[in-house]
Amino acid sequence: MAAALTESQLTARHRPTLDQALKTIGTRAYWSPHPEHPKAYGEQGTLGPAEGKAAFDALLGTRLDLDQPGTDGWVGAETSPYGVELGVTYPHPDVDVLLPAMGAGMRAWRAAGPELRAAVCLEILSRISARTHEFAHTVMHTSGQAFMMAFQAGGPHAQDRGLEAVAYAYAEQTRTPDTAEWTKPQGRRDPLTLQKRFTPVPRGISLLIGCNTFPTWNGYPGLFASLATGNAVLVKPHPRAVLPLARTVQIARDVLAEAGFDPNLVALAAERPGEGIAKTLAVRPEIRIIDYTGSTAFGDWLEVHAHQAQVYTEKAGVNTVVIDSTDDYRGMLANLAFSLSLYSGQMCTTPQNLLIPRAGISTDAGPKSFDEVVTDLAGAIESLLGDDARAGGLLGALVNPEVRARLEAAPDLGEVALASRKIDHPEFPDAAVRTPLIVKLDAARPDDLAACQSEWFGPVSFAVAVDSAEAAVDLLRRTVRERGAMTVGAYTTSEEVERAVEETCLEECAQLSLNLTGGVYVNQTAAFSDFHGSGGNPAANAALCDGAFVANRFRVVEVRREV
Amino acid sequence: MAAALTESQLTARHRPTLDQALKTIGTRAYWSPHPEHPKAYGEQGTLGPAEGKAAFDALLGTRLDLDQPGTDGWVGAETSPYGVELGVTYPHPDVDVLLPAMGAGMRAWRAAGPELRAAVCLEILSRISARTHEFAHTVMHTSGQAFMMAFQAGGPHAQDRGLEAVAYAYAEQTRTPDTAEWTKPQGRRDPLTLQKRFTPVPRGISLLIGCNTFPTWNGYPGLFASLATGNAVLVKPHPRAVLPLARTVQIARDVLAEAGFDPNLVALAAERPGEGIAKTLAVRPEIRIIDYTGSTAFGDWLEVHAHQAQVYTEKAGVNTVVIDSTDDYRGMLANLAFSLSLYSGQMCTTPQNLLIPRAGISTDAGPKSFDEVVTDLAGAIESLLGDDARAGGLLGALVNPEVRARLEAAPDLGEVALASRKIDHPEFPDAAVRTPLIVKLDAARPDDLAACQSEWFGPVSFAVAVDSAEAAVDLLRRTVRERGAMTVGAYTTSEEVERAVEETCLEECAQLSLNLTGGVYVNQTAAFSDFHGSGGNPAANAALCDGAFVANRFRVVEVRREV
Repeated sequence: MAAALTESQLTARHRPTLDQALKTIGTRAYWSPHPEHPKAYGEQGTLGPAEGKAAFDALLGTRLDLDQPGTDGWVGAETSPYGVELGVTYPHPDVDVLLPAMGAGMRAWRAAGPELRAAVCLEILSRISARTHEFAHTVMHTSGQAFMMAFQAGGPHAQDRGLEAVAYAYAEQTRTPDTAEWTKPQGRRDPLTLQKRFTPVPRGISLLIGCNTFPTWNGYPGLFASLATGNAVLVKPHPRAVLPLARTVQIARDVLAEAGFDPNLVALAAERPGEGIAKTLAVRPEIRIIDYTGSTAFGDWLEVHAHQAQVYTEKAGVNTVVIDSTDDYRGMLANLAFSLSLYSGQMCTTPQNLLIPRAGISTDAGPKSFDEVVTDLAGAIESLLGDDARAGGLLGALVNPEVRARLEAAPDLGEVALASRKIDHPEFPDAAVRTPLIVKLDAARPDDLAACQSEWFGPVSFAVAVDSAEAAVDLLRRTVRERGAMTVGAYTTSEEVERAVEETCLEECAQLSLNLTGGVYVNQTAAFSDFHGSGGNPAANAALCDGAFVANRFRVVEVRREV
Repeated sequence: MAAALTESQLTARHRPTLDQALKTIGTRAYWSPHPEHPKAYGEQGTLGPAEGKAAFDALLGTRLDLDQPGTDGWVGAETSPYGVELGVTYPHPDVDVLLPAMGAGMRAWRAAGPELRAAVCLEILSRISARTHEFAHTVMHTSGQAFMMAFQAGGPHAQDRGLEAVAYAYAEQTRTPDTAEWTKPQGRRDPLTLQKRFTPVPRGISLLIGCNTFPTWNGYPGLFASLATGNAVLVKPHPRAVLPLARTVQIARDVLAEAGFDPNLVALAAERPGEGIAKTLAVRPEIRIIDYTGSTAFGDWLEVHAHQAQVYTEKAGVNTVVIDSTDDYRGMLANLAFSLSLYSGQMCTTPQNLLIPRAGISTDAGPKSFDEVVTDLAGAIESLLGDDARAGGLLGALVNPEVRARLEAAPDLGEVALASRKIDHPEFPDAAVRTPLIVKLDAARPDDLAACQSEWFGPVSFAVAVDSAEAAVDLLRRTVRERGAMTVGAYTTSEEVERAVEETCLEECAQLSLNLTGGVYVNQTAAFSDFHGSGGNPAANAALCDGAFVANRFRVVEVRREV
């Protein structure tokens, strides 16, 4: 069958984007080819708002038949955190049939080479981008994110992270030339001359284990890094967030087939309730790469047990903000209020522990006692979320009952500085929408210290009284070392404290945001510029995205012959 | 204390060499700054032959005091494979004292940055290069290599591999700029602007577990890759091959101190007989990186148990040469004879199984039966090694009694096509010098097949009769997949067979040398151009040297602030 998409079409269409991505990961300046604004869509073959909503609605209650080999039944029981039953069913795999079928197309995919593979990946991303409005609804109704966040984080930002991974993969594979002539002088004798050919070869089948909160954003880097380096990719979504990744798989299969490749290079592994298929798949000999986002317990299990695979994990951490002093008290409070509220604190990057000297802090608005800082922060959150409609648009819904249970248990830990409030969603009455809770703790009390050294994922944060800025830095160090951290924030006007926090982050390997008071938040990272996680503390063994994230997904085979 | 070697001196001296190395790993053409010929040394501060020998002799019977903290005794019992007792003793570490001391200098070493670290590493290599004659004797009298091989492989070639690792490490660390300004447009509002700083940070202490046969060649890549990326390096040599690495450590400590850094960034961990200190060190929490060359059993153990570390292993494999046909029969025989003889087959890259169709092969000298090929190869080896002095200069000595025991057991496996012969070394009467043994096996017999699917490290190879070229390729595939391979060779004039072998090597991830009949041998790889191992089959999980070998030895910490 002739390919409907030729190599020259694909590379002509996507090479400029790839080149710009390659340039940007070198400069780390701002860039994105994927528009953030919903109004930017609706023309040039992209779905507009109404079309995207209609496409999503049309999916509900359907069987998403991916035409995969080895399908032994249909599974799916997603209920939106907004209360809607999605009713979509997906193929359940007989892995003994599916895995061999996925290997069949790898030879041709390897032979395509890095540039064509990158172009096919970019075509997949561009088809996904055109359907961003549809994806926004799928992400909203699986993660519980509010629509605008689902649109941006689940759409353009996720696509950016996928493209970034393709760029790193392409750069890494093309560091070594395709061929080389090697001529070694031998004094008066003839030189030794060899012709060498270098070919990037895949490791095998890559397993993506998706998460509930950011199915596309956390899923695309591993998916595209592995695909671009020649591997087949099996996508195992979180059972509560199948739809965004199932549609991704569907689009990837369409593009692969149109480009003349085996669509089984990308496949879905949806599971029955309680099946735990990830654990079975993770130790299969065919699985040579694993990308995982989720709990520390299972991430640690993967790192210890899946020896046959390269394992990239993003697990959980305890994120800290050191509050020592500020020259923009209102800006600091507003910035923190937004960070704690966004998606009800259900980001792996949301701050949990706010470390504040018990003697208070100095600010441009005069000295503030510990209690004043906490009260003012609570006030900033109340004011940010005072209007229910606006609050709903920021908070989204609680992703699952476990988050709600934690939120309900947390007030017992200490004095509540800001109570969580239920908000009625105008459109979805069953949505669990809650404002953030702040509990006061004191690092001098062992129980309090123990409480804040555990992760309370969700809209729970702790205002922790510490003896001094120095004590805050010590606790920060201990927290990152023992519990890991995806992010660290700090507010200080003291050069000494700034140096101490910076040195601690360098030594404990944590990403630091200093004195953010404007429209950038500690919990947000931008592709092509910011690293997400460091890969060097217990929260994650990999960073998005760097050379280490791609370099071991393929190997280079050399064939040399005499000239 | 002012540094005796300033940053500007170091970078001025070594930047051109670094730049040339960076260029060459991109082109993979021939290059080396380290002369291969013994006569090239003796001027410009380098030791000549007599000075090198005198320096080695002066080491014998001494205590090599490295002035390391936490030394709780002196150990060392090296006996040269040539029969000489070295009598050198080394500090034995109290690791509870030594490991913390090694961490003390890491902050300053991190702050030095990639360029200065590279320059310090190149200064170390250049001091080692100046003492190549001395190192040649230390390698000869620990590995059993003949002098010329110890000189070249233990000297310039090892230094090349170290420099290559430094170049990869530098390139990887400087892919991300030191700083970036990120400005994101916000429509009519002011853009968001962040200042970002990116710092490569080390993982911790790196453990190098050295091997008996190539202490410097196999040791330098990991040592210099880790040091150049900001880590401290603890060197645990093989108990029979301490001296070359101990001298390396001593020189590294001198250079570090002269450059104003803590010499404890590089330290030696020599062990008591039977202590097995590598197993203890490998799971210490301070050890975050491990480089290992040695047995498959311990390499597998490290990969499974040292979870706290990045583990890079070169283990053992079974190397195959497919002999299908040739248009240069004499060249093929001469090339293979040399490959099998060099260092008595004690290279991880030496071919073991020669797969030959039982119906014989076609050659430019007419068709040759299986027996003729084997007899002619035996004859080529006998003629290569007919002169005892020349033979000694090629073979070296058996590195340890285990190799000798295997050589003595191998004739029981089948019909001996070429018996091993003892050679009297003119200078060292106690040296165990043996010529290669070739045993005929038949892949159709299960016992024969089992025999050739095990590694017989040393001067043992098997001429294995197979049904056809196709059967040879099948057995090659199975061998690489199940046992691993550092090298694959093939001789064929058939495009079809060539394609089949090539495809097998691409699929099973093995490095292939085709139709070598001249002065390049399947068991030799050149730094900057050839990859040593693939990292994609069971023989090794890493290749020397590529991006994956360096990219995860450090992490990048980002600090961002509003402008």
